[in-house]
Amino acid sequence: FNPVYSNLPTTIFEVMSGLAREHQAVNLGQGFPDDPGPADVRAKAAEALIEGWNQYPPMMGLPELRRAAADHYRRWQGLALDSDCEVMVTSGATEALAGALFALIEPGDEVVLFQPLYDAYLPLVLRAGGVPKLIRLEPPAWRITEGALAAVFSARTKLVLFNNPQNPTGVVHCRAEMELLADFCLRYDVIAVCDEVWEHIVFDGRRHLPMMALPGMRERTVKIGSAGKIFGMTGWKVGLVCAAPPLMRVLSKAHQFLTFTTPPNLQTAVAYGLGKDEAYFDAMRSDLQRARDHLTAGLTALGLPVLPSAGTYFLTVDLAAVDSSLDDEQFCLDLVRAHGVAAIPVSAFYAENAVRSVVRFCFAKNDATLDLALERLGRAV
Amino acid sequence: FNPVYSNLPTTIFEVMSGLAREHQAVNLGQGFPDDPGPADVRAKAAEALIEGWNQYPPMMGLPELRRAAADHYRRWQGLALDSDCEVMVTSGATEALAGALFALIEPGDEVVLFQPLYDAYLPLVLRAGGVPKLIRLEPPAWRITEGALAAVFSARTKLVLFNNPQNPTGVVHCRAEMELLADFCLRYDVIAVCDEVWEHIVFDGRRHLPMMALPGMRERTVKIGSAGKIFGMTGWKVGLVCAAPPLMRVLSKAHQFLTFTTPPNLQTAVAYGLGKDEAYFDAMRSDLQRARDHLTAGLTALGLPVLPSAGTYFLTVDLAAVDSSLDDEQFCLDLVRAHGVAAIPVSAFYAENAVRSVVRFCFAKNDATLDLALERLGRAV
Ligand SMILES: CSCCC(=O)C(=O)O
Ligand SMILES: CSCCC(=O)C(=O)O
Repeated sequence: FNPVYSNLPTTIFEVMSGLAREHQAVNLGQGFPDDPGPADVRAKAAEALIEGWNQYPPMMGLPELRRAAADHYRRWQGLALDSDCEVMVTSGATEALAGALFALIEPGDEVVLFQPLYDAYLPLVLRAGGVPKLIRLEPPAWRITEGALAAVFSARTKLVLFNNPQNPTGVVHCRAEMELLADFCLRYDVIAVCDEVWEHIVFDGRRHLPMMALPGMRERTVKIGSAGKIFGMTGWKVGLVCAAPPLMRVLSKAHQFLTFTTPPNLQTAVAYGLGKDEAYFDAMRSDLQRARDHLTAGLTALGLPVLPSAGTYFLTVDLAAVDSSLDDEQFCLDLVRAHGVAAIPVSAFYAENAVRSVVRFCFAKNDATLDLALERLGRAV
Repeated sequence: FNPVYSNLPTTIFEVMSGLAREHQAVNLGQGFPDDPGPADVRAKAAEALIEGWNQYPPMMGLPELRRAAADHYRRWQGLALDSDCEVMVTSGATEALAGALFALIEPGDEVVLFQPLYDAYLPLVLRAGGVPKLIRLEPPAWRITEGALAAVFSARTKLVLFNNPQNPTGVVHCRAEMELLADFCLRYDVIAVCDEVWEHIVFDGRRHLPMMALPGMRERTVKIGSAGKIFGMTGWKVGLVCAAPPLMRVLSKAHQFLTFTTPPNLQTAVAYGLGKDEAYFDAMRSDLQRARDHLTAGLTALGLPVLPSAGTYFLTVDLAAVDSSLDDEQFCLDLVRAHGVAAIPVSAFYAENAVRSVVRFCFAKNDATLDLALERLGRAV
């Protein structure tokens, strides 16, 4: 069997959700809201199942969804995308990511990655034949520095995989860090594959800055978005890929032989949903921000030091400030088994030399769920 | 960019469907029915969207669907599968196939393939690092012979990719051919990845024989099925993978980082649909058989010699018997552009040394559609 996969554990999110079910825990591990998602978008999808076309849509996605995505990104991020040749629909952001890596990497190419990293990244880079060059970010600020970039970028670098807003830390990298990264991409002729699935989920009045908008990056960026994240229905698995035509041509070839296409009824509903107005997205963000603040206040009251979360469904707690002997993985296993709360150890996001003192909690939950978790956490600490 | 993808054309099915739209052609190219699919199954999916869970289902699939698939294959194919560790849900059969090849192939492994081959096979084998060993099947019988197998199997063979019932020919390989292939798999310790997406669509009283049921093959077969094909809703993209636990463990690792999961509402509906009784599947088969016979009669009356189709949505016509100078690709381009009927040139299913006289037509259409196509074909020939 292929050694990349045969030596791989089951993803931490699945493991923790399994433990959560087994122990009837409050699941603040795997990132999903407990809200059922917008009723009108679900109704559109249901209507399309009953009245609409259930056969293969075009391989690149329904034209109406590609147009809606281009409009959406023009309105909210100022991007000018040609829906005919710069937008593609995939079966979730994971497929988009896998396709981009398989399409763009030639065996032996170096790929720059930041740790903490989403656990799909490294196996996909390895299976694509890439040689990972890891940059290690550290709490509490998780900042990208020029020195760190200079240490890994070279003429052998083919691409950088950049996640912003960042999972698991909730960091939103600032323009200065992004400009630094863009500068290295331009200097070494590197493609940026940008996992921007959390683009809408930024707090405290922030606005998402897409990598593609930076000078010189338009032609060398693959932007990956997720309708499942945009509408808080993580099971929908509708991914959105944007890239300039020369990149898109090769991305589409990988896509056509990974899933070929995505259920048309969900595409129809997402096309509808992407047309929602500012009030909708603002309300979603402010609900999540309120939930973030609620969990932050509760954890702080319990003496657990919360690191700042500027976006995503997640906040993190640094156990080192409580007790330097605590290990994040052991803490999470004890927590789910003995106290009925599931969380994610951030060490699972490192391939080597892991930070082992940080735990991630998902706050995309209603108050009752968060309060129950806090009550149980109160007994644990 | 990766040369496997950068040198690849857009899949012939997409190209022909595009030409069909452009020329308002009757589309007998890409394989999909014009029937909207079972209303009750669509209603279940719609209900699950409105009332059910729209967040991540378990990575291996909804337990109810895994159980329904195991029951289904026990009832119809006599297979004993443990739904807990031998059944996995993917986002379509293409994802299942890609995952199996990426998971099982190590760079340099030899992979046996039969031509004509579905156009995803070869690029996926190459991108996975496999070394293709092609067996060329020929009209009119497309039979697998011992000599052909002996010429390609060796100690370096890691796996064989076997499609039965066969697209594009509509051939159902007989037990003797399958036993021959199984014999080579056992002799050389080879895994069989079996694309059985057409398993339910066999005619004239045939019963599908899964490769997994042959002596010695249970532990070395990856069986790939498709709910989209089972229910004639090709846009649903719900794949079903069955394999013994040691194989499934590595397949699941590839799946978790290709799409991770599949929309739960479609999974719920497929679980329901798989419980349908014999009458349902018999009616589906006999409707398709009637359509096959209808198109066969019409083509024959036009002087186009139809090769026998024992399964799938497809039949083929051998142009060589009409005019030995006809080229299948040119014929199909003329047909769609000048006469408004889309079909698929079978040469697109060969990587080398193509048979260039055979054209594939999809008959999964209602009589009005088939009659319109026949009328137009009558003007063409
Ligand atoms: C694919 S399960 C993981 C979901 C997620 O984005 C997370 O929890 O980090
Ligand atoms: C993925 S489009 C091709 C559909 C199909 O199975 C065929 O037409 O052969």
